[in-house]
Amino acid sequence: MAASGDEVKLLGAWASTYVIRAKIALQLKGVSYEYLEQQLWENQSELLLKSNPVYKKVPVLIHNDRPICESAIIVQYIDDVWAGTGPSILPSDPYERAIARFWARYIDDTVLASATIKIIKVKTEKEKAETIEQSFAGLSLLEEAYEKSFKGKPFFGGDNIGYLDIAFGSFLCWVKAIEKISDVKLIDEAKFPLLAKWAERFGSVAAVKEHIPETDKLVECYSKVLKALWNARAPNN
Amino acid sequence: MAASGDEVKLLGAWASTYVIRAKIALQLKGVSYEYLEQQLWENQSELLLKSNPVYKKVPVLIHNDRPICESAIIVQYIDDVWAGTGPSILPSDPYERAIARFWARYIDDTVLASATIKIIKVKTEKEKAETIEQSFAGLSLLEEAYEKSFKGKPFFGGDNIGYLDIAFGSFLCWVKAIEKISDVKLIDEAKFPLLAKWAERFGSVAAVKEHIPETDKLVECYSKVLKALWNARAPNN
Repeated sequence: MAASGDEVKLLGAWASTYVIRAKIALQLKGVSYEYLEQQLWENQSELLLKSNPVYKKVPVLIHNDRPICESAIIVQYIDDVWAGTGPSILPSDPYERAIARFWARYIDDTVLASATIKIIKVKTEKEKAETIEQSFAGLSLLEEAYEKSFKGKPFFGGDNIGYLDIAFGSFLCWVKAIEKISDVKLIDEAKFPLLAKWAERFGSVAAVKEHIPETDKLVECYSKVLKALWNARAPNN
Repeated sequence: MAASGDEVKLLGAWASTYVIRAKIALQLKGVSYEYLEQQLWENQSELLLKSNPVYKKVPVLIHNDRPICESAIIVQYIDDVWAGTGPSILPSDPYERAIARFWARYIDDTVLASATIKIIKVKTEKEKAETIEQSFAGLSLLEEAYEKSFKGKPFFGGDNIGYLDIAFGSFLCWVKAIEKISDVKLIDEAKFPLLAKWAERFGSVAAVKEHIPETDKLVECYSKVLKALWNARAPNN
């Protein structure tokens, strides 16, 4: 349990899915913190370089001068340190916890890292069709998982949002932006009814709303900044 | 805490780093289990396909008919379920837990997944030199981390092996095999004195010894099976 004199800082970037995770977790636990927006590709701050020398990426949570990196680890850390405050983020049952971790990792490794984000990077219609298919395959497994393990619950976490909701939900704003940029409906209600309804519910949670960037701003950020950067870098960076 | 009538099965493959993690964790907690060696590339068992339909990979821990997949998640699950038995695998302090998770993830994403294993897949001397350099860079960061966060302790976990020791230590047998196959000393005592001494200590822990395959058997497994498979597949599969 954290002491009341805690100093908490979050190094972030407003458009980052991973940073949104840390923001939602802090809000769920009612933790006050100083938010420090970072430059990511040039003129990185000394604080960022010192706090995350391995990856030089956000989010970094700095709790009483000690940095914690990687969004999944930060969310678990927040849940551990502020265990007595607010709702539990990870399920208390070990098996449910393992299932939440499994699908959260799946989202990072599959849905988020590769298939879905690739749709806006493709060069040809054939590539586009292939990546859409990959993305649908990735989402299908999540729809099946919802059906199998979470059906009848409003959230993956049960009655309230939890670890897996945060992991996937933080990405929904980018799903909407990608849908707009590529003119493809990804979380289609006809294809993925459970995910579509869950996404709607997730977006209306109070602790979530204020941390989700507007779709148009993300589209603009993509057009003005990310497109050029992504074209100049390796496919999945 | 698990009940005494628990039925625990481990689906594994003897040469897999990831399976070794689950074996060590189960042994540390004194859990009895049935070990079921799996065919990985053809004729996969119904039980494996049913238990891990997403990745179709080992290890899978089956606890009272419920499957848990992914080695990092399995080790945490074992630590959670058998919390009252044997030593804790993850540190109890949230910050130390976050640090252990960070470096374990780093090992999976960097040291293990790419740089080190690539050394035996390269086609040219130039590629070999490059991958050796990448591998040394990856190990350097771990050496620095040991110096900074774990120095003076025999293990990353403190007086006993813990989560990070298992994550990295399970790979040491393959490091030795790769050193033999490629004729390159990777965990060189002159370059990485702390890691080299830690590796020696890790290898002599009673709970570890019996689960570590002999170097020559891994070299043989590589020459007879893996080399052909790896050459036929994508670089990091």
